Amino acid sequence: MKYQLKLKHLIAGNWVGGSESFKSSPSSGSSHSFPVGTNELVDQAVKDAEKAFITYSQTSRQDRANFLRVIAEEIDALGDAITAIAGEETGLPSARLEGERGRTCGQLRMFSDVLEKGDYLDCRHDVALPERTPLPRPELRLMQLPVGPIAVFGASNFPLAFSTAGGDTASALAAGCPVVVKAHQAHPGTSDLVAQAIESAIHRTGMPGGVFSMVHGGSRLVGEALVKHPLISAVGFTGSLAGGRALFDLCAQRPIPIPFFGELGSVNPMFILPGAAAERGEEIGRGWAASLTMGAGQFCTNPGIIVVIEGESADKLVDAAKVALAGAAPQTMLTDGIAVAYKEGQKRVSHTSGVRSILTSKCDGRQA
Amino acid sequence: MKYQLKLKHLIAGNWVGGSESFKSSPSSGSSHSFPVGTNELVDQAVKDAEKAFITYSQTSRQDRANFLRVIAEEIDALGDAITAIAGEETGLPSARLEGERGRTCGQLRMFSDVLEKGDYLDCRHDVALPERTPLPRPELRLMQLPVGPIAVFGASNFPLAFSTAGGDTASALAAGCPVVVKAHQAHPGTSDLVAQAIESAIHRTGMPGGVFSMVHGGSRLVGEALVKHPLISAVGFTGSLAGGRALFDLCAQRPIPIPFFGELGSVNPMFILPGAAAERGEEIGRGWAASLTMGAGQFCTNPGIIVVIEGESADKLVDAAKVALAGAAPQTMLTDGIAVAYKEGQKRVSHTSGVRSILTSKCDGRQA
Repeated sequence: MKYQLKLKHLIAGNWVGGSESFKSSPSSGSSHSFPVGTNELVDQAVKDAEKAFITYSQTSRQDRANFLRVIAEEIDALGDAITAIAGEETGLPSARLEGERGRTCGQLRMFSDVLEKGDYLDCRHDVALPERTPLPRPELRLMQLPVGPIAVFGASNFPLAFSTAGGDTASALAAGCPVVVKAHQAHPGTSDLVAQAIESAIHRTGMPGGVFSMVHGGSRLVGEALVKHPLISAVGFTGSLAGGRALFDLCAQRPIPIPFFGELGSVNPMFILPGAAAERGEEIGRGWAASLTMGAGQFCTNPGIIVVIEGESADKLVDAAKVALAGAAPQTMLTDGIAVAYKEGQKRVSHTSGVRSILTSKCDGRQA
Repeated sequence: MKYQLKLKHLIAGNWVGGSESFKSSPSSGSSHSFPVGTNELVDQAVKDAEKAFITYSQTSRQDRANFLRVIAEEIDALGDAITAIAGEETGLPSARLEGERGRTCGQLRMFSDVLEKGDYLDCRHDVALPERTPLPRPELRLMQLPVGPIAVFGASNFPLAFSTAGGDTASALAAGCPVVVKAHQAHPGTSDLVAQAIESAIHRTGMPGGVFSMVHGGSRLVGEALVKHPLISAVGFTGSLAGGRALFDLCAQRPIPIPFFGELGSVNPMFILPGAAAERGEEIGRGWAASLTMGAGQFCTNPGIIVVIEGESADKLVDAAKVALAGAAPQTMLTDGIAVAYKEGQKRVSHTSGVRSILTSKCDGRQA
């Protein structure tokens, strides 16, 4: 592997270590030590982001489009190295991670195109009407402007497309806003390599160092400090409803509230109408099972609950789903914590009266 | 006056009284008794709004544009009657209120035009790409949809343009959302007449009664109950920073948070650069005084603080402002509460060390 892990935070162009550290918990391969994030590092990263904002917000759309394309180039260049470490850390299969890398670079390039078109600026120009009665109208101009440094939280289930250089980072950088990423501690090595790619792009395009920083986690205070920092202007988050709600509340409670852009999970209930159940119940059952087990059931689109009217059609649907689920191979959970939560969920459901268990999979470590 | 006050709440087409009442405090003319709003009435109004939402959200844009134009027609028809009662209640001069009526009807007609253009829907249609690799793209369609019943709070300083049928109500109705207005208790009679105009428009265009309700205040629990009602989907508010912040916090703390669209006041600091002060200090001083006293200084754009570098130019600016302010005639404050706050503010400033008083106006009742 031609890329070396830095095993440090990236603060405005400098790789910074720390006294405290935490160990990564990969599903395979060796564990590494990463420094724990601190309030001081968050403060430094955000202050450097604010400094960079002064110049970065004034760069041309063409320069920013070029910057995003070079980031994509650098991530593409990580090639098998990023697939290898992301696979070790998350247990996701290589094909999925290669697809996700393509998506990540595709997003970055898409935002370059958006920048070049420029219609997102929503420019409006109402000319003055000095003769208007009862009052003259002054000239009015409106366009979208970048707001300031943005905090981005990486997602456990999308180590690339919704993490360090994912959609939130790409859109913020496109808009002219510096980004401070809180790396997800489930894949600190993946975050490390992607941060190196962004750092290279900053050097190659002459952007200010403060335009991107990444602070590792290891302490839940890191995320809180980031969201509460007075110079942070908005937050991008992908993750659980509980975690998202806690950060949303911090955003809303600030002396000056800021927007929280969250993509949170759901049980995604599905309602099967009688006609559909009668006509293609078995097909729906098989399809539902396939969607349920996709990515070890850790997608936020996981269809956790299916509602169907009792009867022959429902039985056929359930049987088809059961057969399909029984044939599904075990998969690796993204983190130890998710694997434990899965086992606890199984236990809870099996002890709930009125619930009849149709199929239960065996769990072993992070496998389920 | 050809219009009679109803002296009641308007709940989905029915004029409803109540056991408790409060007296209006007009700056001139006679006081009237209005019923105090209750949690039960708020609940009824919002539930009726939700019922109306089912059909109203499905009306055509042309039908809604027509509805808004008929509301404007009915408000125009109120003519001198609305100027008379709004003038008594708020103390605002007739010319200002006539201008505001024009603005209110202009806003309603502007939203009709917006509806007919339809580009606010932001329609997008990405065709399916079944051959795309690694995964086919499904067909994607996007457009803006109405969200549900909206709570609107009337403003004390704009009894027409930012109140019962003001910009918030016009935009919500245009979008396909029913509205529940909390009438401002500084101008309950004005709200009463405008609600009658909307009621007439509902009858003339065959809209469902629940599309508009108005609950009088008289208790601060009314506004809270409205914002916390689980069927309310967004809040429009124009008023003080403190009041707006309290309602924003209620919106954010709900189990399902909702957007708060607030237009709040500010001290609007102005910074005079040395060149401008030297070149046209006196002109700026006179202009600042005119803006400060416009609408008895109760506009949210009131330039409360002017920052200028000490010296000869600053002295000229201050002197010009002082002369202009000394020549300003007394004006009526919007409410007794604002008049009291003004006097308390004068006292506070005069007791602040380091502050040199240049000019103090005398206050008498609601005059200042």
